[in-house]
Parts: sequence; C-alpha cells; structure tokens
Amino acid sequence: MAQDTIAILGGTGDQGLGLALRFAKAGRRVVIGSRKSERAVEAAEQVRKQVAQAQVEGLENADAVIGAPIVILSVPFEHTAGTVKALKDKLVAGQIVVSMGVPLATAIGDGAVRTLGVWQGSCAEMVEALVPKGVHVVSAFQNVSAHRLQHLEHPVECDVLVSGPKEPRERVMALCGLVPGLRAVDGGPLANARIVEAITALLIGLNIRYNVSDGVGVRFTGLPQS
Amino acid sequence: MAQDTIAILGGTGDQGLGLALRFAKAGRRVVIGSRKSERAVEAAEQVRKQVAQAQVEGLENADAVIGAPIVILSVPFEHTAGTVKALKDKLVAGQIVVSMGVPLATAIGDGAVRTLGVWQGSCAEMVEALVPKGVHVVSAFQNVSAHRLQHLEHPVECDVLVSGPKEPRERVMALCGLVPGLRAVDGGPLANARIVEAITALLIGLNIRYNVSDGVGVRFTGLPQS
Repeated sequence: MAQDTIAILGGTGDQGLGLALRFAKAGRRVVIGSRKSERAVEAAEQVRKQVAQAQVEGLENADAVIGAPIVILSVPFEHTAGTVKALKDKLVAGQIVVSMGVPLATAIGDGAVRTLGVWQGSCAEMVEALVPKGVHVVSAFQNVSAHRLQHLEHPVECDVLVSGPKEPRERVMALCGLVPGLRAVDGGPLANARIVEAITALLIGLNIRYNVSDGVGVRFTGLPQS
Repeated sequence: MAQDTIAILGGTGDQGLGLALRFAKAGRRVVIGSRKSERAVEAAEQVRKQVAQAQVEGLENADAVIGAPIVILSVPFEHTAGTVKALKDKLVAGQIVVSMGVPLATAIGDGAVRTLGVWQGSCAEMVEALVPKGVHVVSAFQNVSAHRLQHLEHPVECDVLVSGPKEPRERVMALCGLVPGLRAVDGGPLANARIVEAITALLIGLNIRYNVSDGVGVRFTGLPQS
C-alpha cells in the first residue's frame, strides 16, 4: 500500500465519508473501512462519483488498515473499543491511529449535547489503552462538521486541535493542510482530547440553539500567523 | 445603587480588573470588591487612572454586592466557595451572580493546563449550589484573556459562551456588547460550564505552545450574522 494512504474506518458514516471525499480530492489514496465490505465498497463508489480520478477503495476494517501509515477511526463511540480490539493482530508498531470519536451520551440513548465520562479520560485515551505496543494514537478532527466536509465546493472554516506524541501529531497536523479551510492547531498531549471531545457536544448544542444546519466550527484567535 | 451597576468581586486580579476597565470605559458604574477594602480602593484608583470619568469605587466584597443587579465572581477557584458562602446573608433573590472561575489544577499546586474534577460538575454549578434561593447563576467570561481585556486600545477578539437560565443569561449576554471584540454566544444550560471552563485550560496550553503573551481567544464559525 502506498506510503500516502489514509485508511478511514467507519468511512461510511457522515464524517468519515466527508474526510474521505476531502482527502481523495486532495489526491491522497484513501481506503474506506467498514464492518461489512459491501458498505465500504458502496462508500468508495460515492467518493468516486463526486471526485473525478479519486484513488479510493472500500474494504473490511481488518483489511483496510494493512499497510496504511495513518488509520482514522471514525466509528461511533460505542463501537470504538470493539473495533480497535478486533484489529489487535492487524495494527503494527509505527502506524498512527487517529481517534476522532466523541463519547456523546447518544451512546446510551441520552442526548448529543452531553458527554459520558470515560474511565481513561477520553475516547482517544481509551483507544490508546487498547492499541498494540508501538502504535501511536493521535486525537483530531472531532470538531469538524460532517456537513461542511461534504460540501466540497466550500472551505470548511474550522481549526483542528491535534493532540498526541510529537512526531505522529505533526504528521496528522500535516493532513489538515489537504483540506481547504482546515487549520491544524497543536493540541498538546493526548489527554487534552478530554477537552476537545467535549467541545463537540458544545458545538452540537450551538447548532441546535442557532439552528445552523451546516454545523458550527471553532477558530482560535491570536495564534501566530492566524 | 444604580440599576446598571456591575459588581466585580476579585476585581483586583488581572481578569477582574480587565473587565472593570472595559465596563467603566463603556460608561457603566463598576464596584470592585475585594476581601480587603484597601485593595479594592487601590484597584478602583487604577481604573480611574486609565479611564477618564470612570464611575468606579472599591469596597469589601460584602458591601460591593449590595444592590448590584449583576455580581461577577472573579476570584481564584480555590476562593470561590468561601467567597460565596460569606455572602449568603448579602445576596438577595433576583440578583445575578456570574461565575467566571475555572477549576484549574493550580488550585492544588498542579498546572494551569489541567482542570480538577468538581463534584457539582463545574465551578459555576458549585456556585449555584451555594447561592441563596432566587439568586440566578450564569457562567461567562472564562475564556477571555486578561491581557486582551487590559489593552483598552485593542478589541478583545473572543466569543463569550454564556450559560444559565434564559432571562439572566440574556442580561449577561447584553454585557458582552459593551466590550469591543467580545461577542456573546448562547451557551445553553449552566451545566455547559463544564466544557467552557475546560476550554480555558486548553487556551492556556495554546498560549504556552505558541508563545502567545496576549492570550489566545476563541471564535465560533458558521453562527448566524457572524
């Protein structure tokens, strides 16, 4: 698999598909993973429909991660632990797993404007506790609206807080540059995912209170060159 | 006391003093409260030095709140409960107490980039549990940089998430309009202070990582008329 491949597990969902579209449009090779290969193949077809010359294929999760330097986890929070556990013989040291999950209370039938407490502190830290040794976990993309990602003709207008160990974090920050309107912001250590994930619940509340169908985003002011 | 008076307890600290300067500049009557009246008087003097014709005075906390429709709590988190408890015979139904405290781990000697867990969920909810019946608690101003507030010649460039019951929340949102560059954003129910307070720790981390002495702010994109 090419060194610039990005695997997106749960790439059939709104946000994962949105990232797949954007990365494919930027010329990166994308592998969409799903629990069922048929659904992954369908999603890949959707990407090809919207992005001419997209390099994209759909595979079962376990196959999608093989050889991909960066694996983005875009499955609902309640499927996160199961998905990662099922990959423990597939992920290898050096791969980067990007956690974009948010422990929204929808996982237990409560609302999307509230989060659950996660024992490890955040979805990202839970993922870190589950991946094989040597696999790097980085937290990113939680606050990016699925709608905005899917509107390929518009820039996304959102900062992406990227948290985790330095070198993998920088590689994920570089990915943000592929998407017009996304700006990577150094989110520090992985534990900051606790805050970043909670911001998603806040943004969902803002969408509701302000009736914003496209999704509210976040920008930090006062950063150098901003 | 005039109906447009704003009392700022802990108005001798950087952020409280910044708000005092801004509100005084906007022509509002400001009462700075402190545990010691001398310090409050000194802070009021500082405001008068920078803002010609400021209507400002300095009083002990217990005197500062009397008759003020809006009381802003700008004391360090570790002094919040004590300050509110000491006011229980002074605050009266109908007054609005604005919690801007953040449970930074500095309260227990750890770093400002991390927060403590608060039993009630947030500093604001702890305050709500302590005020007399009929006093309204609203959460606001946590994410506003003290430095930016104090640079009177520059706009602040920060959104203020205001959370709490509807009518008091709207009155506090209206205050934001007094400060150039502040924009009030409806932050929903008071429990959202859990997220808003945590954002402050994230902003402090950004200040450090990006070496921003003026303080990073936050803006939400995609809101109507933004």
